[in-house]
Amino acid sequence: MSDLPTSVEIHEEGPREGFQIEPGPIPTEDKIRLIEALAETGLHHIQVCSFVNTRLVPGWADAEAVVTGFTAKPGVHYTPLYFNANGLERALAFADKLTISGSISLTASEAFTRKNLNRSHAENLEAMRKQAALHLEKGIAVPRLGVMAAFGCNYQGDITPAQVIATLEDGMRIAAETGAKIRLFSLADTMGWATPARIEKTVGAVRERWPDMAISLHLHDTRGLAVANAHAGLKLGVTRYDSTVGGLGGCPFAGQKGAAGNICTEELVLLCEEMGIATGVDLDALIEVGRMAERIVGHTLPSELIHAGSLDAFRRQAA
Amino acid sequence: MSDLPTSVEIHEEGPREGFQIEPGPIPTEDKIRLIEALAETGLHHIQVCSFVNTRLVPGWADAEAVVTGFTAKPGVHYTPLYFNANGLERALAFADKLTISGSISLTASEAFTRKNLNRSHAENLEAMRKQAALHLEKGIAVPRLGVMAAFGCNYQGDITPAQVIATLEDGMRIAAETGAKIRLFSLADTMGWATPARIEKTVGAVRERWPDMAISLHLHDTRGLAVANAHAGLKLGVTRYDSTVGGLGGCPFAGQKGAAGNICTEELVLLCEEMGIATGVDLDALIEVGRMAERIVGHTLPSELIHAGSLDAFRRQAA
Repeated sequence: MSDLPTSVEIHEEGPREGFQIEPGPIPTEDKIRLIEALAETGLHHIQVCSFVNTRLVPGWADAEAVVTGFTAKPGVHYTPLYFNANGLERALAFADKLTISGSISLTASEAFTRKNLNRSHAENLEAMRKQAALHLEKGIAVPRLGVMAAFGCNYQGDITPAQVIATLEDGMRIAAETGAKIRLFSLADTMGWATPARIEKTVGAVRERWPDMAISLHLHDTRGLAVANAHAGLKLGVTRYDSTVGGLGGCPFAGQKGAAGNICTEELVLLCEEMGIATGVDLDALIEVGRMAERIVGHTLPSELIHAGSLDAFRRQAA
Repeated sequence: MSDLPTSVEIHEEGPREGFQIEPGPIPTEDKIRLIEALAETGLHHIQVCSFVNTRLVPGWADAEAVVTGFTAKPGVHYTPLYFNANGLERALAFADKLTISGSISLTASEAFTRKNLNRSHAENLEAMRKQAALHLEKGIAVPRLGVMAAFGCNYQGDITPAQVIATLEDGMRIAAETGAKIRLFSLADTMGWATPARIEKTVGAVRERWPDMAISLHLHDTRGLAVANAHAGLKLGVTRYDSTVGGLGGCPFAGQKGAAGNICTEELVLLCEEMGIATGVDLDALIEVGRMAERIVGHTLPSELIHAGSLDAFRRQAA
């Protein structure tokens, strides 16, 4: 009946997502403190900054200072986010410290591509083709194909599995043309439209078309269903998830002011560990980092678990 | 692979749970306004008050005024909560307006029974035997057997399916002795210990022992897993759930200050409706009631959905 994996790989995006959306300014040393604390919890993949236009995203004006400032822990992959050649150059200045890897990033919703990127889908394909080629020229692999708004879109409404397949086919065409070897599809519920049933249908359709491709889920808790969606993903054997500690982040898209951000890392860890799925993460340590994140941003974060405490903490008391 | 039901019955407990735990005082007219608005959303079961010791629970000192004050909508069951003969008498004064039905309420954790009720399990069994007999003497059926802390306990730790079965057997013995005809087992995750795996194991074990008994889940979102647990329940074909609009309520138990309350009604409705499971509830109307609840209590409620808006609202815009 179920196909639960024995372990999952969690990609922590709290520092990048969270500090981008907070009104701020968040002191650079607080960002560094959070990154270093996250690495001590057992997380092995942490997205630490965004190399973006500092005029548009003032929260990341200190990206270089953050990357310079944190002490890297061996075995942990620290990754940057960027969207263009300039961002890649800025990231490459830290090639010794950051794990840099290319991505073809598309959107299943044409309306969202226009609103978010001010491009048509065709223009975005062309931009992604250039971006992939640029990485490969520099000897950087491009193993990831991402689809945003894979389960629905505030501007376009429902997104069908067929639209996701068509978007992935566009991406695979770019990969074939540029020589990129895609090893992972990342399906993002960018605006919180996923439900367990949609996850099942879309992941099912993608697997039918590409049976051997690894799948990652990037889930948002916009409408409160993120953990149910993660549960559906686990039942399907999906082994890779993006998340943010404390539920840092938010939804910068239309009509969503005050909406929740990504699935909380600590709730995802609780869900997995209590079902016998290894995450490699020390949950009590992670809960402390969630509380630290809450102190840094200065307001209550969406995570319920950081307010309630872990089950193990109560088990120890009860024993 | 799945056994999704075609419809579910939702029992709204927001007025009772929420106004009990808020520091208050909440004006009586606001309580009435919320109850009347909930009845307009299509909910058919609403727990409207608690007939408890007003010294211990000052938030319900106005229970009589609330019940007198609201205008009942035909077809809606308005229920009271009470724990003893005095509470039952107070409820019976409104027998024309309230749906009064008896319950044998036990706890799978002896430690919780002591802390919460200041009784041993044996003393609680005796109290419940008297309570059931009292109802039956008055011609009131006792169809419900509830087990609190059915998935774990802050004071005792993990609770096994065998402990739940043993507790249900105790309850069924009381039912047999008093002549109560139990038609429903309510399993409550009182302190937020459930996970989808625990729901599967415990519901599975209960069904194996009593294959024909209806099961209801009372889920708390203490650690953020409530919707994943509801999803697990739906997959098992469980068709009855308790919930609170906006996530009203909280967890009054040790070490849980600031912890979340019950699963949010509107997130449960979204989960069900988007998977083709009928709830009878108008979600957009319910979201408005959640926002009303937030204004009444004067602080942000845990529901993400009331802050983001429904998918249908965006579908209409996108169309």
